Amino acid sequence: MNGAQALIRTLVGAGVDVCFANPGTSEMHFVAALDDVADMRAVLTLFEGVATGAADGYARMAGRPAATLLHLGPGMGNGLANLHNARRGRTPMVNVVGDHSRSHKRLDAPLESDIDAVAGTVSGWVRRSLTPADVAADAAEAVAAAAASPGTIATLILPADVSWEDGAAVADALPGRPAPRVAPSVIEDVAAVLGAGEPTVLFLGGDVVVGEEGQLAAGQIAAGTGARLMTETFPARTARGAGLPDLTRLPYPPETAIAALAGTKHLVLAGAQAPVHFFGYPDVPGSPVPEDCTVHVLSAPGEDGVAALRALADLAAPDAVPELLEASRPELPSGELTPRTMAAVIGALLPEDAIVVDEALTSGVGLNELTSGAPRHDWLTLTGGAIGAGLPMALGAAVACPDRPVIGIQADGSAMYTISALWSYARERCDVTTIVCDNGSYAILEHELSRVGAQGDGERAGRLLDLGAPDLDFVALATGMGVPATRATTADELADQLRTALAEPGPHLVVAVLR
Amino acid sequence: MNGAQALIRTLVGAGVDVCFANPGTSEMHFVAALDDVADMRAVLTLFEGVATGAADGYARMAGRPAATLLHLGPGMGNGLANLHNARRGRTPMVNVVGDHSRSHKRLDAPLESDIDAVAGTVSGWVRRSLTPADVAADAAEAVAAAAASPGTIATLILPADVSWEDGAAVADALPGRPAPRVAPSVIEDVAAVLGAGEPTVLFLGGDVVVGEEGQLAAGQIAAGTGARLMTETFPARTARGAGLPDLTRLPYPPETAIAALAGTKHLVLAGAQAPVHFFGYPDVPGSPVPEDCTVHVLSAPGEDGVAALRALADLAAPDAVPELLEASRPELPSGELTPRTMAAVIGALLPEDAIVVDEALTSGVGLNELTSGAPRHDWLTLTGGAIGAGLPMALGAAVACPDRPVIGIQADGSAMYTISALWSYARERCDVTTIVCDNGSYAILEHELSRVGAQGDGERAGRLLDLGAPDLDFVALATGMGVPATRATTADELADQLRTALAEPGPHLVVAVLR
Repeated sequence: MNGAQALIRTLVGAGVDVCFANPGTSEMHFVAALDDVADMRAVLTLFEGVATGAADGYARMAGRPAATLLHLGPGMGNGLANLHNARRGRTPMVNVVGDHSRSHKRLDAPLESDIDAVAGTVSGWVRRSLTPADVAADAAEAVAAAAASPGTIATLILPADVSWEDGAAVADALPGRPAPRVAPSVIEDVAAVLGAGEPTVLFLGGDVVVGEEGQLAAGQIAAGTGARLMTETFPARTARGAGLPDLTRLPYPPETAIAALAGTKHLVLAGAQAPVHFFGYPDVPGSPVPEDCTVHVLSAPGEDGVAALRALADLAAPDAVPELLEASRPELPSGELTPRTMAAVIGALLPEDAIVVDEALTSGVGLNELTSGAPRHDWLTLTGGAIGAGLPMALGAAVACPDRPVIGIQADGSAMYTISALWSYARERCDVTTIVCDNGSYAILEHELSRVGAQGDGERAGRLLDLGAPDLDFVALATGMGVPATRATTADELADQLRTALAEPGPHLVVAVLR
Repeated sequence: MNGAQALIRTLVGAGVDVCFANPGTSEMHFVAALDDVADMRAVLTLFEGVATGAADGYARMAGRPAATLLHLGPGMGNGLANLHNARRGRTPMVNVVGDHSRSHKRLDAPLESDIDAVAGTVSGWVRRSLTPADVAADAAEAVAAAAASPGTIATLILPADVSWEDGAAVADALPGRPAPRVAPSVIEDVAAVLGAGEPTVLFLGGDVVVGEEGQLAAGQIAAGTGARLMTETFPARTARGAGLPDLTRLPYPPETAIAALAGTKHLVLAGAQAPVHFFGYPDVPGSPVPEDCTVHVLSAPGEDGVAALRALADLAAPDAVPELLEASRPELPSGELTPRTMAAVIGALLPEDAIVVDEALTSGVGLNELTSGAPRHDWLTLTGGAIGAGLPMALGAAVACPDRPVIGIQADGSAMYTISALWSYARERCDVTTIVCDNGSYAILEHELSRVGAQGDGERAGRLLDLGAPDLDFVALATGMGVPATRATTADELADQLRTALAEPGPHLVVAVLR
């Protein structure tokens, strides 16, 4: 058995049975071996950033890592932005990065580069397999490292000859590493804080918002102690909808975030880190947490925050009943298509059990509010701020959950970073409906520029933020990659087109013209 | 004056007056300052890989660096593959990578990442500006480092507050660093080798093939000594066409490269490094240079190879007359469209003074032969093997040389990595004609897989190399980004469509259906 065969079989044995792939010559023996392992599903992407973003979306929904197959340092580079997002979301992932054969390394061939250095910037675990006899054990360790709590990115660098040489054997999966429990004394300390009755925010993220158990415990604590509930600005995955507590997300703009936490005396972290602003600004403090607010850690990322919240609820609010969102949908709007009417259309039509991938950015105002009473669904966000994650994540989510509808709400400028994900939707017949928010600009940057002020007449600066001249025709782009697409210029058209897209299986794209 | 203003003015003063940009929030003060410096041309790209590839193509043609503007670590990551190609081509380039403000760094904000580590893998010079008072001197040094001989990538990391704070002043450009001259003793030694009459190849690359002076000297040496002329497989820029010597490129496939150098006793390097195969293969040596062949360095990359060749020609072949290509074009073919008839159409119609950007890969067989007697033109290749360079390089070449026609010959799979370059063509009204070689597959990988052999029935492996299901419709993709496009299924149609595209200003795309 050669190294590639042992590697793939070991991955499958450890539960990693999907590989988002963008192979090159150095990965050809891996591709050849894939042919022989029917249990590994290989999904071709046309760009590595689609592969890594898809692996992120997959793991968020499947709860276990996918593999990626990347071609040397440049392939890893192309995947780096979405690896950054996955790292920030603490997503488990196993990258297999092909490299030159060992004897070829010293020759400084044209594709030679420092893969290890690049991998180290996003990975919690990096290893270079040295011989075919090592590769299976390395793969088993990679999966265990990736799937530990919190999840991390494990990168296995695979020399071509380690793939092609014989002498390998399959390795057993390593035992899982359950999330550490929070000590009872920590829970008691936090209960005492909550009991003091000072203005307190229970700040949630990570594992505790993924499912209903953590959310219901948090809601019980809020009901019994008066603490407010808030989540991190960009949680990796949140269960939402009727029957769950109303979790406000900390706003993105610094001023709004500061206002949202003003007066808070205690910030209790459960699964989240203490918030900081996305960017530093002149004369604005770096964090929205008030200076006189004490931060308490109930559970750090990677600890078992759900159990900690459950125990805290039993201790601090044993008889309280959480306040839950009632089922409610906005009325279907008519007339002008704006971010708000777009959100209302989505809220009115969101199917049961949907997965929403939200990279709407500035066009997303109103989305949270107008979908909060919709049927239960999961919501994935852009965790690391590197735009171009949305389309790939939706691919991964659809592969992970083939029976659930996936709705991507996608800013136009960001869509262009990884637009070829649409082709993979079509090839894999994914049930993904993409709504492109077409405002013809990098609107988030126009807002930032207005904070700064252009130094001339603004025309030259404005051109760097404007996506018009020429306009991007997303209907043509989608159909060019095999995805049926339509264009909506009114709220009514959007509702009609979205309804049709959701009713038909397979991928669809609807352009929401917001200008 | 704030840091951003001083930086931009210093770049312009040092001759860097084009910036391929993909800004984000941390670069907003740079964007604001751009508004005030009319001499800096900012070209918006929709993806950082387009920006870095364009800067590569620009510098190859302009002979001086462009700047790029990239957004933190993920932005640099997106640009990394084409930075790799530029590094391999020894292209001068100045990257400005925005980063968080200094006070924000310690907060580990979502977009925080190790920019320095990523930058170090592709850059010959990396610096992080520490204060507004430093930034202009840093920029002047970056330009000097980039433009030294050989060219390199200089990366300046620019904290947002170093941009926005006052206290900066413009710095003077630093003096250029001319290429070191080769010692006369080296030239005499090589002349002695050539005089011995053993089978010798003069292996050319880098600076010596860019213009006619080096090529004519090489041709004179060949005529006078019997040495064969050959160039590296992927020279960054080569002057070609009637009136120049016939420079054979070392073939890409290992077996063919080995055959091309078989029997050679002396390999004399001028501007090139000794060749190695792109990849290692089982039971194939890593280099095509025969074991009993002695390698002599006339000029290393970065040394003045043109002067060395001129001096060598005077010493070793003072009276020889180089054999030069006569003007000749293939006949316009008719009927079936194949790589060879495509090459004949291009050879028949290539305009005077064209710039050809060649990422045709497997579809490019015949291109060299059938264009060798065409009117004088420049030819740019994929120096580092990271596919997705062609479309961006053509953007940069067109910006550098607005009065010359640019022809991109582009493999289909590779085109998808950086397809949004087409939008920048349209926006900048570049006179670029793109020929997409549509064979519906990663044909180069199908060839590699056939060397390896799939391990099952080949169906699952083959699917990873096949771009059909669905077919990519490049006409739709191009028109969706504002570039008029047509589709040719016969040699006659290709000729008609290419003639029309070349006759009209502005960008055009022609799909050559090769299947």
